[in-house]
This record gives sequence, C-alpha cells and structure tokens, in this order.
Amino acid sequence: MSSSFGRLFKLTTWGESHGPALGVVIEGCPAGLRIELEDIQKDLDRRRVGQSIVTSTRDESDRVELLSGVFEGITTGAPISLLTHNSDQRSKNYDNLRDVFRPGHADFTYWAKYGHRDHRGGGRSSSRETWGRVAAGAIARKILAEFGVDVFGYAAEIGGIEMETFDRDQIEQNIVRCPDPVAAAKMVEAIVRVRKDRDSIGGIVEVRATGVPPGLGEPTFDKLDGLIGQAMLSIPATKGVEIGGGFRLARERGSRSNDPFVVEDGRIRTTSNHAGGTLGGLSTGEDIVVRVALKPTSSISREQDTVDVDLQPRKLVIEGRHDPCVVPRAVPVVEAMLALTLTDLLLVNRASRMHPTG
Amino acid sequence: MSSSFGRLFKLTTWGESHGPALGVVIEGCPAGLRIELEDIQKDLDRRRVGQSIVTSTRDESDRVELLSGVFEGITTGAPISLLTHNSDQRSKNYDNLRDVFRPGHADFTYWAKYGHRDHRGGGRSSSRETWGRVAAGAIARKILAEFGVDVFGYAAEIGGIEMETFDRDQIEQNIVRCPDPVAAAKMVEAIVRVRKDRDSIGGIVEVRATGVPPGLGEPTFDKLDGLIGQAMLSIPATKGVEIGGGFRLARERGSRSNDPFVVEDGRIRTTSNHAGGTLGGLSTGEDIVVRVALKPTSSISREQDTVDVDLQPRKLVIEGRHDPCVVPRAVPVVEAMLALTLTDLLLVNRASRMHPTG
Amino acid sequence: MSSSFGRLFKLTTWGESHGPALGVVIEGCPAGLRIELEDIQKDLDRRRVGQSIVTSTRDESDRVELLSGVFEGITTGAPISLLTHNSDQRSKNYDNLRDVFRPGHADFTYWAKYGHRDHRGGGRSSSRETWGRVAAGAIARKILAEFGVDVFGYAAEIGGIEMETFDRDQIEQNIVRCPDPVAAAKMVEAIVRVRKDRDSIGGIVEVRATGVPPGLGEPTFDKLDGLIGQAMLSIPATKGVEIGGGFRLARERGSRSNDPFVVEDGRIRTTSNHAGGTLGGLSTGEDIVVRVALKPTSSISREQDTVDVDLQPRKLVIEGRHDPCVVPRAVPVVEAMLALTLTDLLLVNRASRMHPTG
Amino acid sequence: MSSSFGRLFKLTTWGESHGPALGVVIEGCPAGLRIELEDIQKDLDRRRVGQSIVTSTRDESDRVELLSGVFEGITTGAPISLLTHNSDQRSKNYDNLRDVFRPGHADFTYWAKYGHRDHRGGGRSSSRETWGRVAAGAIARKILAEFGVDVFGYAAEIGGIEMETFDRDQIEQNIVRCPDPVAAAKMVEAIVRVRKDRDSIGGIVEVRATGVPPGLGEPTFDKLDGLIGQAMLSIPATKGVEIGGGFRLARERGSRSNDPFVVEDGRIRTTSNHAGGTLGGLSTGEDIVVRVALKPTSSISREQDTVDVDLQPRKLVIEGRHDPCVVPRAVPVVEAMLALTLTDLLLVNRASRMHPTG
Repeated sequence: MSSSFGRLFKLTTWGESHGPALGVVIEGCPAGLRIELEDIQKDLDRRRVGQSIVTSTRDESDRVELLSGVFEGITTGAPISLLTHNSDQRSKNYDNLRDVFRPGHADFTYWAKYGHRDHRGGGRSSSRETWGRVAAGAIARKILAEFGVDVFGYAAEIGGIEMETFDRDQIEQNIVRCPDPVAAAKMVEAIVRVRKDRDSIGGIVEVRATGVPPGLGEPTFDKLDGLIGQAMLSIPATKGVEIGGGFRLARERGSRSNDPFVVEDGRIRTTSNHAGGTLGGLSTGEDIVVRVALKPTSSISREQDTVDVDLQPRKLVIEGRHDPCVVPRAVPVVEAMLALTLTDLLLVNRASRMHPTG
Repeated sequence: MSSSFGRLFKLTTWGESHGPALGVVIEGCPAGLRIELEDIQKDLDRRRVGQSIVTSTRDESDRVELLSGVFEGITTGAPISLLTHNSDQRSKNYDNLRDVFRPGHADFTYWAKYGHRDHRGGGRSSSRETWGRVAAGAIARKILAEFGVDVFGYAAEIGGIEMETFDRDQIEQNIVRCPDPVAAAKMVEAIVRVRKDRDSIGGIVEVRATGVPPGLGEPTFDKLDGLIGQAMLSIPATKGVEIGGGFRLARERGSRSNDPFVVEDGRIRTTSNHAGGTLGGLSTGEDIVVRVALKPTSSISREQDTVDVDLQPRKLVIEGRHDPCVVPRAVPVVEAMLALTLTDLLLVNRASRMHPTG
Repeated sequence: MSSSFGRLFKLTTWGESHGPALGVVIEGCPAGLRIELEDIQKDLDRRRVGQSIVTSTRDESDRVELLSGVFEGITTGAPISLLTHNSDQRSKNYDNLRDVFRPGHADFTYWAKYGHRDHRGGGRSSSRETWGRVAAGAIARKILAEFGVDVFGYAAEIGGIEMETFDRDQIEQNIVRCPDPVAAAKMVEAIVRVRKDRDSIGGIVEVRATGVPPGLGEPTFDKLDGLIGQAMLSIPATKGVEIGGGFRLARERGSRSNDPFVVEDGRIRTTSNHAGGTLGGLSTGEDIVVRVALKPTSSISREQDTVDVDLQPRKLVIEGRHDPCVVPRAVPVVEAMLALTLTDLLLVNRASRMHPTG
Repeated sequence: MSSSFGRLFKLTTWGESHGPALGVVIEGCPAGLRIELEDIQKDLDRRRVGQSIVTSTRDESDRVELLSGVFEGITTGAPISLLTHNSDQRSKNYDNLRDVFRPGHADFTYWAKYGHRDHRGGGRSSSRETWGRVAAGAIARKILAEFGVDVFGYAAEIGGIEMETFDRDQIEQNIVRCPDPVAAAKMVEAIVRVRKDRDSIGGIVEVRATGVPPGLGEPTFDKLDGLIGQAMLSIPATKGVEIGGGFRLARERGSRSNDPFVVEDGRIRTTSNHAGGTLGGLSTGEDIVVRVALKPTSSISREQDTVDVDLQPRKLVIEGRHDPCVVPRAVPVVEAMLALTLTDLLLVNRASRMHPTG
C-alpha cells in the first residue's frame, strides 16, 4: 500500500470518503516559504463538490486545517499536516450497496485484494481522496511560483466536444473550465443532457506548465515523462496520458516531428513543441503539455447488471449525488499532480552537479 | 538520478551506448527460481540491432554474462548482475556531433542538466540502455510464468497502418511483430520506403498480460495504472500510454464503458474489458491491455536546422545506422516493462493481508 | 526531510511540541487486523508525561483519535491516521529562549539547516514527536502478537546503577521500569537527587523480542542489525546501540563468542546468545537483545554558558518541566521502534522465496 | 533484499565471495567530478587480503574496472559501474562445509530465509562484499574533499588493548592502523598470538569526519545518527556503534555532558564534543566521532560443535585463510560507510531551504 508520492517533496494522503476526516502530510517542503491558508483553500474550492450544476450536489465545505510545519506563516522544514472533516457523510445512501460490486468501480478489486470492503461510497478509492493532492499541490505551486513556473489546466474535450480556440482568461469563467467559451457552452449542455439520461460522459483535461527550466527529470526511470505518467494515471478515472503530440506522433514522420532548435534572446528554444516540453525525459524549457483521458463516471443511476459477494447475479441502480462528468473538478487535481511532480524534480535536480549554478 | 525501478523486485541499469559495457543489477528476485541463460538471451535477441532489414545495421551480439545471484542454476535471493560488452562502438561516427544538439534528441537537455555531454550516440539516453530492461524482464517473466501470468506485445500500428486481425501465432512470424500478416507486409513496406526517404516513422506497441490474479496494484499512488504509466513513459521515444479503451473512453458514456460483472466457472469476470484489466488501480483478473505511442526515430539523415553549444545556428546531417522505426525492437522492451511492473506488484501484494490465502 | 520509517509497514510522524496537534500516518498495515483504541492508548500512557515523580510534570492527556484505515474495528489496508491534540502548550515559558541556543539541544543545528528556529520547546526535535512512534508501535505489536512475537523493554541502567536481577513481572511495578526491584529503588532515589541538584542523568534501555522466526532482515544494507541501528539512533537523546554482547564482544575471542548450534525440540537453537539473536544481519530465532544508551536530559535548570543568534555570549537558565532522566519514558519508545522494525521485516520477508512455506 | 544504500547518492553492491566477479553501481554521483582510477584503487588496497601478517593470506588483486558513468575523466551524472574479478576462488576448500552450519556465520540464517545456501565461503554474507562499499566510498571521499570534509578511521582497540596516544600520521605506518605506535605493536603481537592459538579476537574501529558543515541530517528518521547506525551495523561482524561519548554518556550528568556553545572566529563552536558532532540528529560542525564494535572473526580453526542441514550434531574444523582479527581491514570499510552517509546527506541537504545560501 503506497499512499505516498515524491522523493524529496513527498506527500502522503489518508482518509476515506465516509470516515470522519481526511488529510495529507507533506514532507520535504523547503524551509522559508510563506504560506497563507487562503492560497490552499482557493484551489480546494475549485475541486469542491456542489460548485455548479455540472457537479455532484453532495455538500462539503472542504475547509482546510493546518496542524504543523508552519510557524509564524513560514514553513520550517518540518512535515506539514493538513486536514479536513467530512461533513456530509450520509452513509445510509450506500446500505443497498453493502454486498454488491458496482460496475466500473473498485469494489470488486479491493475485495479481491484486501478480503473486505468499505461499501460506503468507495472508501479509499473514492475521488474524495484527491482533496489531499490538491491541498499539497497548492503548496507546490507556491514553490514553483518563486521559480517562475506556472501550472494551469483546462477541459480540452468533453463528450466528444473539443475546444477550438484558446483564451486562458476564459478558463475560470465557465463551469466546465474550458478556454473556448463556445465549446464550453456546448459541453455544459452535453453534461446536463447526459445527467437527465441518468448517464455520464468522459473527457480530456489538458495541463500546461510554463517557465520550467531545462534539465528537470531524472534518467533513467524517473524521467519527467515517466513520473507524469505515474502522477496522472494515479488519479481516479484516468485511462490515458500523452505528452505533447502524444498518440498523434505515432503517425508522423521524423522530419516533421523533430522540433528544430534555434537561439532566441540568448537561450536555446525550439520553433515547434511537438515534444511537449521534454526530450530524453528531461524538460527542454518549452511549455510542458500533458493530456489526460478521463472515462465517464462509473456511478450512473440506470439499472446495471452485476454480481454480489456471494457470486449471485444482481440488478443494481445507484442512487446518490454523483458528478455526471468528472472533467471540471478533475482540472485542479491534474494541475496539482503536475505541480507536485515538478516541485519534487526541481529539488532533486539540485543534486545533479557538483557545483550547481542557479 | 534514478536508474532503478521497482520496490521489492528492483532493477538498476547502467552503461552508455558507446562505453565498454552495459548491464543491470536485479535486487529482490525471490530465491528458488530456475534460470537458464538461454531464456534471457532469447528475449535479448528479439531486441537486438541488425536482426532484419527494418532495424539498425549496427552489429552487437548482446551476449549476456551472468555474474552473481544464481548458484547451481537456482536464484539464491542475492542480487543478480547481468552484463554485456559493447562490441561495435565506432564512436568516430559521432565526431561531427561533438558540439551540436541533434533535434529530437536528449543532447541539449542532458547538457542543460549536467553541464556536459557525451556526444557518442546519446550516451545514457540511448535506447541501448534498454538492454538491461529486457534482460531483467526475462527473469520477471520466468517468475510470472510460475504464477500463470503471460506477457506478450506486438506492433498495433506503424506509420498510420493499423492491424485489423489478431493471430498471436503470427507475431513472431514477421519482422515488424504484427499479429496481422496483411498489415505486417504493409508496415514493412512503409518502413523500407521511409528509410529510402532518409526519414523515419512512429507507431504503437500494444502489450497484454493474461492470467493476472485480481488485486495487484497499490493504492493510492502505486496503482497498477500509475506504475504502468511510469514504466512505459520511461522507455525512450514514448509519448503516450493508454490502458484498455484509453482515450476512446473519453468520448464514451458510462452506460457503455462500464464493464458488467458476471460469474463464470465460479469466478467473477466482466463481459467486456473496456477497463483494460484494472479498476481503481488494481487488476481485475481480465487481460491487462496497454497501448504505447512511439514517436518517429529522431535520428534522420536529412539535413536539419539546429544550434550548437556556442549558441550558433548549424546545419546537421546525421549519418549512422539508425532504426527507421523503433516499433519492432520496442516490442520486447514494452513487454519487459510490463513484466517487471507486475512481478514487483505480485511480491508487494503478499503484504496486503494479515494471513494471505494464496 | 524524512519523517518516514519502514519499507512496507511505514509510518510518517508529524507535529511539533507546541503546535495544535501531532500525529502519525501508518501505510501498509495489512488488512484484517482487529484494533481497539485502548490497545494503543495503553502504550501511549506508558510514554505520557506526568505519570510519576521521575518524569516531567507537563500535563498532556495524549488521548488518541483514529481518523482512517479501520472499518468496523478491522484494518482495511488503507492508511491509518492517528492524532492527538496538545493540551498544555504554555509556549510563554519559552519566550526567554527565543534567540538563544540551548546547549545539548537541536536549536543551533536546526537554525543552521533551516535558517530559522521554532523556539517553543524544541519544535520538531522535541521528544514529544515520539508519541506517533508509540502509537504506530502499538499496532505493530498487535501484528507481531499474531505471529507469536513479543517485544518488551526495561531500564537496564540509570545514572550508573545497573540492574542485577531479572524478573519480567517487576518491570511495570516500579516507576523506572526496572526488572530488578532493588536496583529500581536506587534508580528512583538517584533521579530524585539529581532533580534536586537541578541536573539530569542518563541510562541504558534494554529491549528484547521473543518468538522472532529465523531469517528476518534484508541483506546487505537492510540487515536487522542495521535497521535496528537506524531505528534506535533516531530516538532523541540516544548516543549508542549494541546488539547482544555488543561492545563486550570487541574484547572477546572467537572461541568464546561464537554461539554453538544444537537441535532442541526439532529446531536449530544456539546454546548461548552472544549474538543477540542475529547472524549475518538475519534473525536466528533466539531472542533479539538490544541495548540503547541515552544521554542525560539536555534541559537542566542550572546556569549554562551559551551563545545567541547574534553570536553573542549568553548565560542561560532553562525553566520548565523536564524529565530529569529520560529512561523510564523512553522504554515504550524503544519497544515501539523494535516492534516497527520487526513488523516491516516480517512483511518484506514474504518476498524472499518463490513459494513461501509459512 | 536490499543491497542499496543512500537516497540521492546511492550504491548497490552485488556479487558473492566465490562467484566470478563482484561490483557496485553508484547512482546519483553529481556530474563534473574528476575521478582517477588510482584514487579508488588506493582505498581498495587498504582493504585487500594478504596485505600483511595480520590478515588473511587469500590472494586477490582486487583490481578495479570502470565500466560507465565517467567520460574523459569526469563524471557525467550517469550511474558509475565498478567491478573486480575474483581471482582466488578455491571453492574446494569449502566442500566439507556443504551441509554444516558454521557457528557465528550466516549459513543457518540464510538457509532459514532463502531455503538454500551457498556454502562457498559465505556467498553474499562474506565480508568480500565490502569491496564495493570501499570502491564507492572512495568516490564519496572525492566529493567530500571538494567541500572540505575529510574522513579517516583507525584501530582504537584490539583484543582489549586500547590506544592511549593519538598521532594521525602513525595510522598507516603500522599494519593494524593504530594512531598509537606503542599500542600498535602490542596489538600486532596479540593478533599473532591468537592466530597461533587457532583463535580470533575482536576490536573497535573509530572514525572521524572533519570539516562537516552544520545542519547535515534529515529529521526525523534519517538523522545523521540513525543513518550512521544503519551504515555501521550493516558491516559484517559489527555488534555496536556509538556517537561521541556514547555509552559513557549514559553514566553522566547533564551538567557535564552538555557541550557549551562559544563563538570562535565568527562561527559557533562547542568547547567540548561529548556529542560527537551531532545534536538532534544534525551535524554541529564539530568532528563527527563514531566508534564501531567488531566481534572476533567467526571462522576459527579450532574444533567447534554445531549441526547440519539434517539437524544432526557435527564436529567442525574450519580450514582456510581467515583474518584472525578483522579490525585492520575494517578501517577502510568503516571510513567508506561514513563517507557515503555524509555525501548522501550533503546532497539531500540542498533541498532544505527555498533559497540555499552556499
């Protein structure tokens, strides 16, 4: 069981969707960083349920408490412990699920692994676990900001509707977090329709990091690409990840997919960025560009065929207040995972040379 | 710098493309496994250069030497050290590359990170490093075999040509390793054509694991999906990975993407496998199905624009004996990475329960 | 910064002596273990301040809260989060210490490392941090108990007074936790006297584990001895550790220090145990015997010479409610660290063989 | 099985005493360090068998081969692979040991753990494994030297004979490596006598590091003391470790054991060094002082009682060419382990602060 991520900047999340609380411990946050609770809360609010008509209507304040590692507003180098209490637990909603395996959920696989199950809303496998990632990610983003690195994500596609224009300022102006306001409106419509159908839809989150210095990533197995792969595919509901051109490059020729080097303003740049900001697993200094495929929410309120713990066939209707599409709330989670990955690599990178220069 | 992969079954690779030798150390191989060198060599030969007209013509025997960890044909539990000598080093071919950054290669990013570069064919970032992965993977596959798990990969797409039929027996019958002989012929043709054009093409490797028991994977961050993501995106030239339906599921509805549970022969199965054999990051018992996107080989012998270490523009023509398409030789590497991931998780999984049952 | 210990059974402690709370997260506790909060509280009470006239008079209930990882009284395999609130923080006692480095304390070294200091009672370096170790250790001991392993510690020496007889039942019958009641009385007297002198004294804690199966420990660097060394010397105030005969063996001859093997009741035993239960870094099946040297408490209320953050000489008198001797309260901490080490190795050991037998 | 040590500067040793070769892979050596093979060989020669009349007469050249990680004499950041071939394997000497457990050796515990044994001279548990530690340690010492840190060890006690004077220049002038020439002569005499008696003796190695900057070590579990504990107690034949005053401090009063702070030449020093250079698990800037207890060599050529794999009693006489006292050859191993620990912590420490100063 590993609930930890990172080598030097490391987070450990704990807590279940219907337990009393959940939280995260962050080890290795460098001393001397100013942290305001509001910085953390702001990102958490973007992940919160009940924020709009396209998300679950469960009600959680997700209010963060800071228990250690910060003294007089400054990080001390000690572990930072952050916690939130679950307010809206309504476990009784789940009583009809006690013995049955929900299709598309982890009920069966946890049962196979651990010989038991926590039927109350997914327990540890619930996306509620991502609270701690976003909280830790907010701190990572504060660190990155001091080094000029910015991370932001958005809905690139929902239910087959792709964004066609890009205006960063638009992202937080619509409830699906799409940088294209026209596509955004269609995406909202699609989600509302699918909810009415008692169904769900998937989509793609794209995330970018700007200002990343060249050379981050650790050959051979902790390449930036590899760690991004682990980071993203550890998020619930993800089924694919690609860097830069990704799967499109599999159909390209080398003469078109190689990004030519040039010198601009005294530093080495590439004239295109098919590579998505990495070469040989190390950052190039161009934007890191990552796309993450999210499957449709597994909880749907249509009748489904399944089996129970006694290996008997069952008909199942899942009631409850689920997101018809996870993309809008996944955006801050994807951002957090990229920020955490980059922060860790930034610290690890300090050991690359005998006498670092920067 | 991390050249290690795995938690309990751990490999560490070392060596450069043009150094005297390269190798791998495997820690945590359980005692009591019978190993024949020929089992290892067989997989290595599938990764070898010069094996057909679609690969590089560099000549390396890739002969494996076993230096430790096996006594009288049986693993002892001690680290297993495997090594091969580089025979065809021709570093002089690379003299014209001493100061120039090859587009699509890691020359620039290594230089940015480490303040130096080994210009002889990529040094550590060369795909020659994957020798050790395949050698270790062969041992992992021996372990998996004892638990009824089989891993095999194949070319699913090359240069836009997709396989359309599947016959496992066909895979090793053609030089691109495609289970569809008709598509295979077209793929060979495409590679030959692109080589004549002094260009290169990309493709997709698909890999499957059968017989995987349910419950492998470690929540929350060492999910099977996450570790597969890291494993695959640590392979040179990879730019994307998807599990099961992958990016296609991003366009699906939940009522179609959920795999219904049934009971067959007394065990729980799903009637479809959109999930690709994982739910909540744990194996379901269905086939693990993974697709890996590989970009076109970066080394092409057309003239390219680039810059050098003095930040001056340069024209570059890369001579040498490069693979026009990495897919055929990447198949055993992708297999190895999946085998290594599963073996490690199989051992880690033994700690999941107080009193394991199997 | 690493506040984590263990490979598969891993704890992460967090919290400062004068923050709002402190706690521990335990990853990798196998599923299926019954846990009662009272089992944990019982060990915590043995570590608590204010338990007798030989300890600090600070008042902390140390009441444990369980926030995750246990469902209906049974561990689920998910991380277990335990927390206690600090009730008696009186930070104002420490105001005169704001700028001064207390001799024997970590004030200076934390300042040198992190560029700041938390002057309130040691912050993270306070022995209050060991709360989480004892809480996690209590769970480890529950696991060990199911495998027939028992861990217990005692005061072997305080202020130069050595135990001369051994009666396990006596240990918890006196406030210094000495198995020799006569020595115990002298030890108490010595502590009372030293407190009156506004001074402190050191001592030795001995800990034993019985019922340990042979073969625990991981060559080469995670030997049982090595991990015990790390475990013990990570406890505040420790300055030495020895296994079995320890430093005495450095003066022995091989013909006397080798423990002869015999067969008893069908299993291999040794007729003596100079080795303290380990050979080649693996357990032998005999009792694990470890001795830990603890220096005198650094906080004394005599006037001491020191310097402050402006590099000026200062006279210092430390007021406050400190333990005049840390041995009695260190006993459960030392036990916890041995229990944690053994539990982790027991789980890791399951990966040693292809087909484990037990 | 963990044959790795270190977090960022990490070594992995492999090989058995009677296999074809043994070696070490070093990950995370910073780029830009000049390495001469002779620097490494020099330390290896101090560890070599057959160097004097007080060591084993086995003949091994221990010649080091460098296979990767260094290009044109400078480290590249890639893993460094070092190897030596075993020349004098005479496994036949061990044929009479095939089924019998040598007292004081790891034969029994390896058999218990792995279900097998390599009877040829200890296999993996042989002190021959320390070759790789000394090779890696030599590189660590080159790094430390660039930061002004020097590590040196010596025989402090052999067979009860303690050094009484200290002259660093004397250490390598005598075959036991004692800084007191008078004691050295007595130690040599004692070893010669014990060899004639077909017996062995133990001793104590002391090691010091000078020039260590304050603040190295990682709270809470990777304290400098804890990692030194692990490092030292992972060396074959060690049974105890103490830092600074060590076990002596257990008998002290706080008013005497606290080291007062003063300012000297503008930096904070202590007027004594009972702490052995660490406070709160972090370096103080004073000399690190560590003492390691080594038991007498387990291999003695007197008849001993033991049992065999069939649980039958056996009489055993171990022939062969063993060290009558391990102390002289252990000195470079102890030095290596301290150097490796400090190097790793020096690199990890770079992540402690947002904006490191130096």
